[in-house]
Amino acid sequence: MKKTISVIGGDLRALTLAGLLAEDGYSVRIFGFDKDIDTAGLTKAKNMHDALMAEVIILPIPASSDNVTINAPYAKEQLLLDDFLAMIGATKLVLAGHIPPAVAVRFDREGIAYIDYYNREELMVKNAVPTAEGAIGIALSEMPVTLSGAEALVIGYGRIGKILTKLLTALGAKVTVSARRWGDLAWIEGSGARAVNTAKIADGIELYDVIFNTVPSLVLGENELAAMNKNTLIIDLASVPGGVDLETAKSLKRRVIWALSLPGKTAPISAGRIIKDTVKNILSELEVG
Amino acid sequence: MKKTISVIGGDLRALTLAGLLAEDGYSVRIFGFDKDIDTAGLTKAKNMHDALMAEVIILPIPASSDNVTINAPYAKEQLLLDDFLAMIGATKLVLAGHIPPAVAVRFDREGIAYIDYYNREELMVKNAVPTAEGAIGIALSEMPVTLSGAEALVIGYGRIGKILTKLLTALGAKVTVSARRWGDLAWIEGSGARAVNTAKIADGIELYDVIFNTVPSLVLGENELAAMNKNTLIIDLASVPGGVDLETAKSLKRRVIWALSLPGKTAPISAGRIIKDTVKNILSELEVG
Amino acid sequence: MKKTISVIGGDLRALTLAGLLAEDGYSVRIFGFDKDIDTAGLTKAKNMHDALMAEVIILPIPASSDNVTINAPYAKEQLLLDDFLAMIGATKLVLAGHIPPAVAVRFDREGIAYIDYYNREELMVKNAVPTAEGAIGIALSEMPVTLSGAEALVIGYGRIGKILTKLLTALGAKVTVSARRWGDLAWIEGSGARAVNTAKIADGIELYDVIFNTVPSLVLGENELAAMNKNTLIIDLASVPGGVDLETAKSLKRRVIWALSLPGKTAPISAGRIIKDTVKNILSELEVG
Amino acid sequence: MKKTISVIGGDLRALTLAGLLAEDGYSVRIFGFDKDIDTAGLTKAKNMHDALMAEVIILPIPASSDNVTINAPYAKEQLLLDDFLAMIGATKLVLAGHIPPAVAVRFDREGIAYIDYYNREELMVKNAVPTAEGAIGIALSEMPVTLSGAEALVIGYGRIGKILTKLLTALGAKVTVSARRWGDLAWIEGSGARAVNTAKIADGIELYDVIFNTVPSLVLGENELAAMNKNTLIIDLASVPGGVDLETAKSLKRRVIWALSLPGKTAPISAGRIIKDTVKNILSELEVG
Repeated sequence: MKKTISVIGGDLRALTLAGLLAEDGYSVRIFGFDKDIDTAGLTKAKNMHDALMAEVIILPIPASSDNVTINAPYAKEQLLLDDFLAMIGATKLVLAGHIPPAVAVRFDREGIAYIDYYNREELMVKNAVPTAEGAIGIALSEMPVTLSGAEALVIGYGRIGKILTKLLTALGAKVTVSARRWGDLAWIEGSGARAVNTAKIADGIELYDVIFNTVPSLVLGENELAAMNKNTLIIDLASVPGGVDLETAKSLKRRVIWALSLPGKTAPISAGRIIKDTVKNILSELEVG
Repeated sequence: MKKTISVIGGDLRALTLAGLLAEDGYSVRIFGFDKDIDTAGLTKAKNMHDALMAEVIILPIPASSDNVTINAPYAKEQLLLDDFLAMIGATKLVLAGHIPPAVAVRFDREGIAYIDYYNREELMVKNAVPTAEGAIGIALSEMPVTLSGAEALVIGYGRIGKILTKLLTALGAKVTVSARRWGDLAWIEGSGARAVNTAKIADGIELYDVIFNTVPSLVLGENELAAMNKNTLIIDLASVPGGVDLETAKSLKRRVIWALSLPGKTAPISAGRIIKDTVKNILSELEVG
Repeated sequence: MKKTISVIGGDLRALTLAGLLAEDGYSVRIFGFDKDIDTAGLTKAKNMHDALMAEVIILPIPASSDNVTINAPYAKEQLLLDDFLAMIGATKLVLAGHIPPAVAVRFDREGIAYIDYYNREELMVKNAVPTAEGAIGIALSEMPVTLSGAEALVIGYGRIGKILTKLLTALGAKVTVSARRWGDLAWIEGSGARAVNTAKIADGIELYDVIFNTVPSLVLGENELAAMNKNTLIIDLASVPGGVDLETAKSLKRRVIWALSLPGKTAPISAGRIIKDTVKNILSELEVG
Repeated sequence: MKKTISVIGGDLRALTLAGLLAEDGYSVRIFGFDKDIDTAGLTKAKNMHDALMAEVIILPIPASSDNVTINAPYAKEQLLLDDFLAMIGATKLVLAGHIPPAVAVRFDREGIAYIDYYNREELMVKNAVPTAEGAIGIALSEMPVTLSGAEALVIGYGRIGKILTKLLTALGAKVTVSARRWGDLAWIEGSGARAVNTAKIADGIELYDVIFNTVPSLVLGENELAAMNKNTLIIDLASVPGGVDLETAKSLKRRVIWALSLPGKTAPISAGRIIKDTVKNILSELEVG
């Protein structure tokens, strides 16, 4: 018997996810997509009760942004979490992306099983590609020079830093990457980039045409911003609190673009596919177990 | 004794050119940069007469767009070609980019030696990089999927087609390139892309996420446009008349972006550096001769 | 009605070619493969007369190396050109690789139509890949340092030079390429390598860990060899007369490897596939015409 | 005051290390290099006693292969560990690569401080480059087809697997990589290769032209070997016990090359540089501490 899945709320990513799950043979209903978006080929649930009849319920990224309603920008009317919690039975499985703590507490209290797919390693790894491409798109639009031949600094060698380094190198940029551990510094050199200790990025910082930050703590403070060239473009990809002292940057007239949530913004269909792959992995693990 | 050069008219490319020539030790004056642009560090000619005192005169790309004035968007007042021709002596060398035929005729009549630097092989080759990067920037902004994993068609394997193929492949796209000659088709396969005869691009055209055209003659006509997927993005890089039947494309609601003059728009400083390299090559050849 | 083809003489390349043509539906016979090679699945001609019954006759690369016999290292007995010419009718089409002038004269005299597939642009382009890979294989075996990070000079930016530059860059070498024309120098820079004028390769030549020559005329003479580092490995890929003054190189104890005919030696099956693609292109052109 | 260092035993790697440390300003002596190797520019210790006067003593990889002598292939006479232990004072620091347990026990007993530089993350990461290049060199020599276009399987996505994947992809191979974790599988896809679960590598295994194993446990057993194509080349890079059932491979006539210790064999100078970088990191950490 094929599994029934409801996709409640979300944007084009959620809709892409719903379509792909239907293509894979699941019985899929969507809820919260009433306006401004093309839902051709998909089955809509009539109401929250109808939506909650499925075995698996999928909530968007983030599941809620106000702790009161489900995040559903294409719903005509608000989808209240109270309604959701009142009607959902304890036997359902909820998959949600980035569940706020206040919401998680209520799920726990009601005994609802949930899994945060946004925490999954494979989703985070795969999201690094649309994030890095989005960052490169910004650089290509905003820089008066080509990336080919440009001096680029990538701060941090985690998932996004690794993909960015690869793409920038492929585009012909001269890439320097900062990290803290010997092993990471060795990997950076092995990838064909220059390695620099994060503690020393102020040295020579005036040479960069573009700086990409991926570290979510203050790495570009007063020292670094003052030493920098006024034409350098800073693209901050780090989640809150970011890596740039924005006030100082403003007073020094540094060009900073804080680019958050790029996968959903610049490549929503790819982001939807990534969520779908992750959801399938979760379901296959549960089945095996 | 160092050469004197005047840069008359143009945009940020011309200004970049002037700055780089000055850095190389030439005595440089600029004329036609009075408003809305930072000319710090550069010497301005007082008037057309003053500007024409130099041994070498550099006009922009295009030298004129109306055959009456020199193309000078940052000049407060129009720079008339009549004035230019009246005051310039026959001993000057004029380097201009893309000289309109009507202007060339007048230069010839006055016996003014000129060289069109826009025709130089090395400039055209080097401009392929900012053009290809600009096209990729458009694709990254406009496509709902990542280039990594996307199906891309590049029509034409000239300068821009070659660089585009390389960059798209490097970004992880699945690239198909069309050409007509066996030798080109062999090169395409050697570059890691799939090769298809341009006469047969309609076959399977519905599979592409993005199509880049570089051929300046009708290659995407009614057949191809009808066969295409409605979500496919077409980026036409070909100069007039372009390669897309725009009327049919409009009636079929195909997404077409005709992106002209990308180097000057998206990477003016790099474009200025390329002009500078070309001007230096021209001057070195004249000296040797 | 399917075409009949005979493959007469040659090595593993010719045998691969025969097998692939048979897979494509041609009726194929082989002749001159009697010893030391596995011909399973292929039909052998009984004798020269039998071999010459086919519509298309394919001779190897080179067709003959002594102008007396067909080049057939796996034949038990010599295949005499005299026999071949005596028995072949004027209606046959002969495809041969690298036909010696003395043999071509005899073909002409007998009125035998022949095409030299070794001259075809697509074959030469495709052969650049196995040649470049072979050269890199030699470098990897012979150099005491990794190509990653090594300083490499590629002399000449023709087919092999282009592919070599791409592969060396991909492996992380620091690549300098020499050429003579501005356009080529621009392409080299666009490919991410350093460009140097061939006339000036002696400057800084002591820095290279490895030098690949692709130009078949003296480019590494006494000057260059004397200026070079004693540890530098020279790999000469140029056909006769090569690009290295071998006598001087020997007296100066420079390490020179003259690597000829790499595709057939290091990747005979790929080389056979390339010949097959070329033969198919030739046949398709003849049919259309 | 500059540090004194003795390099005792080893091969070209150790000699390169000694030379580079001397270039960096250390006072370096070598011991155990009396025959068949060029030691120009280096200072030789007169005897073991003299060699042990330095503050830091560097032993080779492996430090000993018989637990009786120091591994010193270029020494005229054996360097006995007994002598070494008898003469060395407890105040010295010994840096050694791959110290056998039996030797480590004796060092401990004598209270000699030692650090095994072969265990350092950065050395292992950097050694992945010469190892991967060596493996590719073997593939280029041994395969009858080009790597460009070849189907390649890389088993394991650790250090060597990652670098191999990158280089093979860059050379135009169609690369499949096996791993076990979702996160690794996501990384593999992100790198442009196909990902396959290691448990399922037998599926489709007959398609590969070459298989590189990096996992030091039995992954290519009877099942996999039987399913394989007889022309497939297996290159096993895993340390003892390797990843291939060699007996079965032999009875099935599979082509297996077990390539151990590639960095030292194919790129000894690069391997020496890597040891030097690692030794410097160790010394800088000790100084700070």
